[in-house]
Amino acid sequence: MTSSTDSLKPTSSRSCLAIVLAAGEGTRMKSGKPKVLHQVANRSMVGHVLATLAKAGATSVAAVIGPDRDDVAREVQKNFPEARIFVQKDRLGTAHAVLSAREALDQGADDVIIAFGDTPLVLAETFAKLRAPLAQGAGVVAMGFYAKDPNGYGRFITAGDQLLAIREHKDASESEREITLCNGGLMAVRGDLALALLDRVRNDNAKGEYYLTDIVEIARALGHRTDIVVVPEDEVHGVNDRAQIAAAERIIQERLRQEAMASGVTLIAPETVFFSYDTQLGQDVVVEPHVVFGPGVVVEEGAVVHSFSHLEGTRIASGAGVGPFARLRPGASIGPKAKVGNFVEIKNTEVGAGAKVSHLTYLGDASIGAEVNIGAGTITCNYDGFGKYRTEVGEGAFVGSNSSLVAPVTIGKGAFVGSGSVITDNIPDNALGLGRGRQIVKEGWALEFREKAQAAKKK
Amino acid sequence: MTSSTDSLKPTSSRSCLAIVLAAGEGTRMKSGKPKVLHQVANRSMVGHVLATLAKAGATSVAAVIGPDRDDVAREVQKNFPEARIFVQKDRLGTAHAVLSAREALDQGADDVIIAFGDTPLVLAETFAKLRAPLAQGAGVVAMGFYAKDPNGYGRFITAGDQLLAIREHKDASESEREITLCNGGLMAVRGDLALALLDRVRNDNAKGEYYLTDIVEIARALGHRTDIVVVPEDEVHGVNDRAQIAAAERIIQERLRQEAMASGVTLIAPETVFFSYDTQLGQDVVVEPHVVFGPGVVVEEGAVVHSFSHLEGTRIASGAGVGPFARLRPGASIGPKAKVGNFVEIKNTEVGAGAKVSHLTYLGDASIGAEVNIGAGTITCNYDGFGKYRTEVGEGAFVGSNSSLVAPVTIGKGAFVGSGSVITDNIPDNALGLGRGRQIVKEGWALEFREKAQAAKKK
Amino acid sequence: MTSSTDSLKPTSSRSCLAIVLAAGEGTRMKSGKPKVLHQVANRSMVGHVLATLAKAGATSVAAVIGPDRDDVAREVQKNFPEARIFVQKDRLGTAHAVLSAREALDQGADDVIIAFGDTPLVLAETFAKLRAPLAQGAGVVAMGFYAKDPNGYGRFITAGDQLLAIREHKDASESEREITLCNGGLMAVRGDLALALLDRVRNDNAKGEYYLTDIVEIARALGHRTDIVVVPEDEVHGVNDRAQIAAAERIIQERLRQEAMASGVTLIAPETVFFSYDTQLGQDVVVEPHVVFGPGVVVEEGAVVHSFSHLEGTRIASGAGVGPFARLRPGASIGPKAKVGNFVEIKNTEVGAGAKVSHLTYLGDASIGAEVNIGAGTITCNYDGFGKYRTEVGEGAFVGSNSSLVAPVTIGKGAFVGSGSVITDNIPDNALGLGRGRQIVKEGWALEFREKAQAAKKK
Repeated sequence: MTSSTDSLKPTSSRSCLAIVLAAGEGTRMKSGKPKVLHQVANRSMVGHVLATLAKAGATSVAAVIGPDRDDVAREVQKNFPEARIFVQKDRLGTAHAVLSAREALDQGADDVIIAFGDTPLVLAETFAKLRAPLAQGAGVVAMGFYAKDPNGYGRFITAGDQLLAIREHKDASESEREITLCNGGLMAVRGDLALALLDRVRNDNAKGEYYLTDIVEIARALGHRTDIVVVPEDEVHGVNDRAQIAAAERIIQERLRQEAMASGVTLIAPETVFFSYDTQLGQDVVVEPHVVFGPGVVVEEGAVVHSFSHLEGTRIASGAGVGPFARLRPGASIGPKAKVGNFVEIKNTEVGAGAKVSHLTYLGDASIGAEVNIGAGTITCNYDGFGKYRTEVGEGAFVGSNSSLVAPVTIGKGAFVGSGSVITDNIPDNALGLGRGRQIVKEGWALEFREKAQAAKKK
Repeated sequence: MTSSTDSLKPTSSRSCLAIVLAAGEGTRMKSGKPKVLHQVANRSMVGHVLATLAKAGATSVAAVIGPDRDDVAREVQKNFPEARIFVQKDRLGTAHAVLSAREALDQGADDVIIAFGDTPLVLAETFAKLRAPLAQGAGVVAMGFYAKDPNGYGRFITAGDQLLAIREHKDASESEREITLCNGGLMAVRGDLALALLDRVRNDNAKGEYYLTDIVEIARALGHRTDIVVVPEDEVHGVNDRAQIAAAERIIQERLRQEAMASGVTLIAPETVFFSYDTQLGQDVVVEPHVVFGPGVVVEEGAVVHSFSHLEGTRIASGAGVGPFARLRPGASIGPKAKVGNFVEIKNTEVGAGAKVSHLTYLGDASIGAEVNIGAGTITCNYDGFGKYRTEVGEGAFVGSNSSLVAPVTIGKGAFVGSGSVITDNIPDNALGLGRGRQIVKEGWALEFREKAQAAKKK
Repeated sequence: MTSSTDSLKPTSSRSCLAIVLAAGEGTRMKSGKPKVLHQVANRSMVGHVLATLAKAGATSVAAVIGPDRDDVAREVQKNFPEARIFVQKDRLGTAHAVLSAREALDQGADDVIIAFGDTPLVLAETFAKLRAPLAQGAGVVAMGFYAKDPNGYGRFITAGDQLLAIREHKDASESEREITLCNGGLMAVRGDLALALLDRVRNDNAKGEYYLTDIVEIARALGHRTDIVVVPEDEVHGVNDRAQIAAAERIIQERLRQEAMASGVTLIAPETVFFSYDTQLGQDVVVEPHVVFGPGVVVEEGAVVHSFSHLEGTRIASGAGVGPFARLRPGASIGPKAKVGNFVEIKNTEVGAGAKVSHLTYLGDASIGAEVNIGAGTITCNYDGFGKYRTEVGEGAFVGSNSSLVAPVTIGKGAFVGSGSVITDNIPDNALGLGRGRQIVKEGWALEFREKAQAAKKK
């Protein structure tokens, strides 16, 4: 399921600076969080863009962010640690935004890519295709798409395979509005031209802004080739509101599902399964309907994830089965052929090969040996309000139902825990541990109780 | 998420009588329940119609129901308490059905709306638009829609903006069948004309029925204006079978999802989230995939509802997180920044600010103080087969895992409950309560047990 | 919900041999499992084909499978016990595959149907329609469909209602490629002609294979009628990869949902409910969003299946309610008006009429009497690592919360079990059973503990 682009080789040894515009507040999101931090497939939009740029061979990144946006800066550096951060103080247009990273442009690069923090669906192959013509003499390469409804988009004015200009919708003539090849925003520019082109952009337009799109005409006026790369409309899907981010999520999930199925995974009802950007599934894994994968899940060959399971930060070994109704949290590691059943939560715990944790159980900070049987209703009491402690259950042990294992505690190999026990002390190998009240019976009690209770109700 | 029509102001101070036809049995539903009581978004269809009429300024309601339908009468009065109920004894057509409410018509109203109990998707704005022309001299206003497939629908025969007649499909000429503007059923009639028009309807047709649609031609013959209001086809979606009610549900859910997203809610996978008609969600609330909202849920700003959660009658305060696998039932109130985790059921219980109820727990009829930690597997034993009793857990208390709190019982502030305890008596502030058997160990027992069990199996 | 084809009567008393081609490995599935064993609606594809053939009146079956495919042979015989198995050693084309079952053909039958193990969506009616013309003199009947995109399919070359030939896409002329009536694969052949036609097929083509489709021209050359039956494209949907099997699942689920709704079942969100091939639902059953039905489920009239429930091998009686978050496993039988609530697993257990099992409970190998109340967190301890034992709870008993019932054990009628008890011995009728530690309280302990813990943390 890891994308085929994992192994994408940069098309050349050329250095590549990616300038990522991530300063937009996204007011139509109606959110206290800046737009580019909103997530699809459990990664921020800007995180997707940065990861894709890295795959496409970007050697350096300059991120242009809004003022006082430490949260965006942190997210950028989490995803591309060497990224340099530039703050765009005034909002004077896209060319101005790019020039906020002047220092990065000054340092030079063979190729410059200009990308956007709110178009998370662009593929690494596309960035690579945008760069490729630069090595063969193009000055600027712009990404276009054929719009189903071109209304509102900038139009590509072309001559043969050359882009003459990008015309904003409102400035387009009636015949230009017939054009459906529209501006996807992304551009690649030859590094030695970039500053010269950008510095020539003027703001003598209605809005008084510096438009990045103007560099096409500027480049042509200086005699440079301006090429076009066309991509499907889905790929340039931008996000301005919550409905659009839901649409982006739908597209990325559909990609991840198709990749999973193509690699030999059974998805019985793909539309009900939600992956994270990094989910890894082996061949002949079966995922039943209604499953959610948080980040960091690896499922090995032939394992089954039953319905209504929720997994994150978890490794499931070959031939294991989890769910229905399993919740596996970070640090869960389920051994080969082990079974995790319904209403079971496992966190920071290794479950050994062939072990069974079938029902209504919480295992936290534990190590469960091979072939152990954990009875229904077992709880590891791993927290005392201050610290967390470990529970060890040895190979082949049998923990009776409804037991409480008060950590730190060790159950020996082959040991038994009687049902309903509270275990506070270690149990040696092959011993029985019991900790429960002795049963008493009061004959006729229930009869009396009912009579009294009913009499009381009547009053 | 509360609809924008909440604040809809009646367009005038005119009185408005709504006659709601709700007598259809709906045999194609194949149900023991009358059609109009079937629900969409957790409210009966007739309930939706009545609520929408109230928003649109209906000042009185007359509901026409079938004989012996106390269930329908009760549902009508639940949703519009002052509604008058009329029984349609014989089924002699829609005009006859309307005339079952003759007494209501006799009392007079400026405007009369005729609505249907099985078209739950009509918007309040539409009722308002239907009424508006009456104040400007129209005698009758009919609601039409452009049908994708007009086959089977009555056609609007028009001249300019005036409706001349409504022609039943089977009576339409070939050229009339080309018309795609079809009859949506709803009508508004000037109150001082309504009875006069209705009483002129004749049943000299093939079926021998009195058709409401005939009042258009009658009104014109008397020299009145007959106006048209056109709405999208979705809005007049009627329900006659289970597939159609599922389609109505899909339309209303899609509306509720779009409203939520427009108001600043993140729905990662909108198509997997099901709302009730009255769900209220604050800005920056995140709803993960696969969540069901029953009636009466309010989620405040910035709270997160994780996957596989099922909520009804619940308030979740700002910054709280619930689920995955949370079931919150009526009377649950989750405090600010509190956390409710997996396989947790909460009913008629207040959970204080910052409290944690993380796993495998049932809280019923309880009050949980701020910053309390409820361990995994905790159960409030609130029911003894006759009465229900309360559990109080004071601020900052720590309830160890797998404990049973036998109500009525109070755990003091800052108190501790040892894991696996059955607590039957109150615990003072800052005290420790313990109620569990002391652990014993029998060395070698498991070895012997296994040998015996295996020997027995071999026999 | 059982398909309307259940009662399909064979159109005649003619004997019918079905030859099912099931030798394909399905390499594009990227699976260790042969293609025809992959499932839709919880039955293998070949199982669907065999069940449908049986409904359509097939009197004998010959399955052609690949070498060393005991798993396929077993699955065939599980679904059609008298089926004969033939192994296709070399892959020399479809006619060659059919001839692998020469022995079956030698024995004779009035009708021969040739079907495919990887087209699970063909309806029994369609098989019957294919056979019908044979009784009226046709020699061969081929199944066609109008393809949305005919590219790649064999085309039907027709004259009037007669099929002249089936032309492979690559052999088709430009004008033949305009034909959209394509070959659906299935055929019916008069039993007394079958071998004669098949033995005349030659492999003088580019691939050197024996094509079954050649028998059309051979039959015509011998003067026989060659008829056509046209079906919707969905029905001939073949499966070659995981995306196609997901598409087949979607089609079959949509059929099952429509059948359920047509029979008077409410599906609030049909697209989130997944049935098995054999799910049976009574009138006025309500299924809420997000429910999964495994094989063997029967839900009687008026029962409600709440959201997030997972059922298999279960019977739910009239008026009962299960879920949300119920997991009912094989052998669960839920009595009339009984209630099973959230986070409850029930296996091999009868729950009596009106009984309540509301929360966080595991019942395995038990018998629960009428009107019993099982408290939250109750666990039947039915397994000791070697054997499984039964728990009996008598009518009207009340089992307090968080109890462990250690089987074999009997709770008498009307008996009470105190909350948090471990019950190892039988409890007589109307008695109280208690087995828990007595509570002690240590005043001030928590205060001291916190001080120590905080001091330790500071160090």
